[in-house]
Amino acid sequence: MNGHYELLYHQVRQTGVKEAEWRPFEQGTRLLQAAPGERIIEAGQQVRNAYFCTTGLFRLYYTLADGREYNVVFTVAPDFATAYAAVITGEPAAYSIESMEHSTVIEIPSLVLQSLMDCCRGWERYVRRSLERLYIRKEERERELLYLTAKERYDVFHLKYPGLAARIPQYHIASYLGISPVSLSRLLRQEGH
Amino acid sequence: MNGHYELLYHQVRQTGVKEAEWRPFEQGTRLLQAAPGERIIEAGQQVRNAYFCTTGLFRLYYTLADGREYNVVFTVAPDFATAYAAVITGEPAAYSIESMEHSTVIEIPSLVLQSLMDCCRGWERYVRRSLERLYIRKEERERELLYLTAKERYDVFHLKYPGLAARIPQYHIASYLGISPVSLSRLLRQEGH
Repeated sequence: MNGHYELLYHQVRQTGVKEAEWRPFEQGTRLLQAAPGERIIEAGQQVRNAYFCTTGLFRLYYTLADGREYNVVFTVAPDFATAYAAVITGEPAAYSIESMEHSTVIEIPSLVLQSLMDCCRGWERYVRRSLERLYIRKEERERELLYLTAKERYDVFHLKYPGLAARIPQYHIASYLGISPVSLSRLLRQEGH
Repeated sequence: MNGHYELLYHQVRQTGVKEAEWRPFEQGTRLLQAAPGERIIEAGQQVRNAYFCTTGLFRLYYTLADGREYNVVFTVAPDFATAYAAVITGEPAAYSIESMEHSTVIEIPSLVLQSLMDCCRGWERYVRRSLERLYIRKEERERELLYLTAKERYDVFHLKYPGLAARIPQYHIASYLGISPVSLSRLLRQEGH
């Protein structure tokens, strides 16, 4: 088995996917490389694949009316980097997903994902649990934006994404925190960074 | 079968729940009445049940540091009115869920829900699909707050919750839109309401 598939293999085995139910996944999907700045999902376009990121890093972002970009989430491997809502509904994606490093993803056609869920209990369970994680994170983020100051959101960012601050430009962190790069610099000066 | 169970029964039959797999649900759950102002979920407390609202209306809201309340979503029967993330994680609820009318819910103990998902494919599928709907709505709401003006959010509120404006006080709509009651009154005057 290609090394990029190993982690996912172990995860789905734990939710009850049998050896024979794994093979159609390996056969129906492929590995893709994404260079820094390359987008695997483009806002406004149909989404026909889900992506599981095995190495590297992605950001999911909205482009606002004035052209500014707003980072909603970072995906650090290994994890899904995918517009799941668009995969389910068939609507165009509302946000883009862009690689921030030399990244590798497993590209999973929606039809393959759907047929695995239909055929195999273990796959359905795996998707349900992954979806629960996505949902919990959405709620967490909603609360952070409601309750926390910029400074507190910055601290939570470090807890949630250990080491990430060193891998990405500061303005991408500012965009995630919902503040301007200037405000973030000021905040860091006050902190003595 | 009690009439309050009928809709849910038809829904889960469609995701493949068998007659024999329905019985433990009916036996393991109970009907509750919730008067206006009554809370079925209390922020800060453990959540041991999921709730399916069969008649009436609920609001999910955060209480901010200054005591203001922020309505994140309204649940109009028939639909789930539940802190699903807290049910999964076992963490205390981050928000409260309050009845706004004389409402009826099916109270589903987390353990019953868990064992139904473990035993029965159809139940797992039903929960997965319900979760997808919750997730899609969270994304929609995220976009509304990012992209839309207060006026546009008000229009979307009417589309999403037809007839609801006549059933609840205006300040609850303002709280959902993320504006003050005064701003909402001004907006409605401009509209000629």
